[in-house]
Amino acid sequence: MAIYKKAILPLGFKANGIHSGIRKNGKLDLALFYSLKPAKASCLFTANSILAAPVVVCKKYLKQAKTFQAIIANSGNANCFTGKQGLKDAYDMSCFAADDLGIEPKSVLVASTGIIGKKLAIKEIKSGVPILIKGLSQSGIDKAKKAIMTTDKFSKEITVKLNIGNKSITICGIAKGAGMISPNMATMLCFIFTDANIKQGALNAALKLAVDNSFNCITVDGCMSTNDSVMVLANGEAGNAEINGGENLKLFTKALSTVCLELAKMVVKDGEGATKFIQINVNKAQSVSEARSVAINIANSPLFKTAMFASSPNILGRIVAAVGASGAGVVEDKLEIKYSPLKKKEIRIDVILNKGKNSATVYTSDLSYEYVKINAEYN
Amino acid sequence: MAIYKKAILPLGFKANGIHSGIRKNGKLDLALFYSLKPAKASCLFTANSILAAPVVVCKKYLKQAKTFQAIIANSGNANCFTGKQGLKDAYDMSCFAADDLGIEPKSVLVASTGIIGKKLAIKEIKSGVPILIKGLSQSGIDKAKKAIMTTDKFSKEITVKLNIGNKSITICGIAKGAGMISPNMATMLCFIFTDANIKQGALNAALKLAVDNSFNCITVDGCMSTNDSVMVLANGEAGNAEINGGENLKLFTKALSTVCLELAKMVVKDGEGATKFIQINVNKAQSVSEARSVAINIANSPLFKTAMFASSPNILGRIVAAVGASGAGVVEDKLEIKYSPLKKKEIRIDVILNKGKNSATVYTSDLSYEYVKINAEYN
Repeated sequence: MAIYKKAILPLGFKANGIHSGIRKNGKLDLALFYSLKPAKASCLFTANSILAAPVVVCKKYLKQAKTFQAIIANSGNANCFTGKQGLKDAYDMSCFAADDLGIEPKSVLVASTGIIGKKLAIKEIKSGVPILIKGLSQSGIDKAKKAIMTTDKFSKEITVKLNIGNKSITICGIAKGAGMISPNMATMLCFIFTDANIKQGALNAALKLAVDNSFNCITVDGCMSTNDSVMVLANGEAGNAEINGGENLKLFTKALSTVCLELAKMVVKDGEGATKFIQINVNKAQSVSEARSVAINIANSPLFKTAMFASSPNILGRIVAAVGASGAGVVEDKLEIKYSPLKKKEIRIDVILNKGKNSATVYTSDLSYEYVKINAEYN
Repeated sequence: MAIYKKAILPLGFKANGIHSGIRKNGKLDLALFYSLKPAKASCLFTANSILAAPVVVCKKYLKQAKTFQAIIANSGNANCFTGKQGLKDAYDMSCFAADDLGIEPKSVLVASTGIIGKKLAIKEIKSGVPILIKGLSQSGIDKAKKAIMTTDKFSKEITVKLNIGNKSITICGIAKGAGMISPNMATMLCFIFTDANIKQGALNAALKLAVDNSFNCITVDGCMSTNDSVMVLANGEAGNAEINGGENLKLFTKALSTVCLELAKMVVKDGEGATKFIQINVNKAQSVSEARSVAINIANSPLFKTAMFASSPNILGRIVAAVGASGAGVVEDKLEIKYSPLKKKEIRIDVILNKGKNSATVYTSDLSYEYVKINAEYN
């Protein structure tokens, strides 16, 4: 398995990104990802009960279609809490792209990120789509990855190559940062493209495992968004024998997990105002879910996060209080806590519950003045 | 019912506060509250599974004894995560006071607030107790209320007087602020004194209802402490016919609820770095617990809190995302959100779920630079 710290689209994929006018500052705001051949898709969405319109449309399409050929995504507006008009706008976005590409609307997935509760600039999107499609290319991923960024300080991108049978397979992923990076920007988007030939069920299983161990293990501010979407397109262009379980699925899952975990870590490192990258390991728990719940409770404690920001030597009490408040019923005489030097940029916390044999790891950032500034000063 | 914004001890109670040396800055750090006659007690403690030593000792005494005559409390050290030594120290605190007062240790409740994980300065406490007892007086409550403060900006105190039958009853409460006001200070303490003559079961019921609608409805940073304690002593000195249900219990419960709610609001107003006081009403929920869970999810969202700090006009999306993330299964087309002008010091948010007939109110503060400063800069 070879890892490249940049986005390299696999065989049969093209992309592009443009400034359509949704955002007023001239930044790229509209992206298209296109597979020359129909591809299998697997998607995971936010658990928030209020869903942005593009999430609703994607869920519908995923029931109606078996293959997909494109993803259209915009930044600057989340198209959420926008009622029937928002649903129509999300549907129209897929139609504009489908019409120009000569494919069916239901084979075009949709994603949005930005302000909640404002009408989408659908005219600008309509005018932008032909330009977007005209410029599609393999290297266009470099514009596309920028068009989904909001206040991200750097683009999140990674490519993994591996061999399955005699064939070289590529998995390329890009993401936009979490933590509602700009006010009311409630979105973590991740798009993954692979030329692997893989059965639908195997792709779903691989993605679920990869996301459980990556995006579901990070938290910046504990705020669950209305737009979170992770989408994989697999177009089979690598020509490998179809992956359907066994050793090949393990290899593929491992590679996909690497893509997701590296992107997730980048999202934390670019968390709002983050000055530290913190890994919290909870060991000897009764179950993995118990371990994760303890780790997340620590990670989301504002008192823990401010102490991390300050490299405070009095961190112990804050970890103890958060562990006790996690609902895991941890008692004092079983609990062990260790941590690496607090002044460093990367910090590791080990919490040993001495209750069982299960572990979980969660990644988080600190809470700095900058977090308050970023989230307070926007207008 | 008459409300006084200061602590006035009821008949038969005395108190005092001194600097014993637990804290190094010369501030008052040890308090004693004493009832001349044995009193009934009712207590509620933190739901954190890691309990500070004084909480463990109090729980034991409450099983062993039926009446109580004193509460000894210190600031500067939470005596939590201190192992067997901590338990011995908490037990010794009650013994020192009991010996000098000539009463049994199990009739002396104990409370601590301060740093977690550090050994208590038990020698200083031992030397301080005789001085503390010598200075007991009715007006000593003014020193006692200061001795439980840590970085509270003002003391939290209230007195309510009401008539039951022909007798005047006094309920006096003091509290120390929440939000782990100083780093590792993980404690909200509240002590309430009344001369009412009331049956044990009635006192327990009244306190539970009062706390459910006050201290359980506030949040500063969502961090549950290891030391939270609310204690009531009722010594019967008012000479009223014993309260045991009916209209008299309703009157007493209403007065006790007023004491708790006013103290709880003061705790929020003095929350770390608070610049705003925010009331969140959730209406038309399926159950009270659902309404409260939605309100608390909004109140604890760092994105909501930073937007409140900044009076951000883009608050809508942050409320929507927090409501959807609450687990209450709220959907977009039922949800209504209203709010009062954001530039003011006191803000009211109304969230209408249109799912049922139940309501809840939660009080919270905003998240400011000052919160980060207070919690980061301590050493």
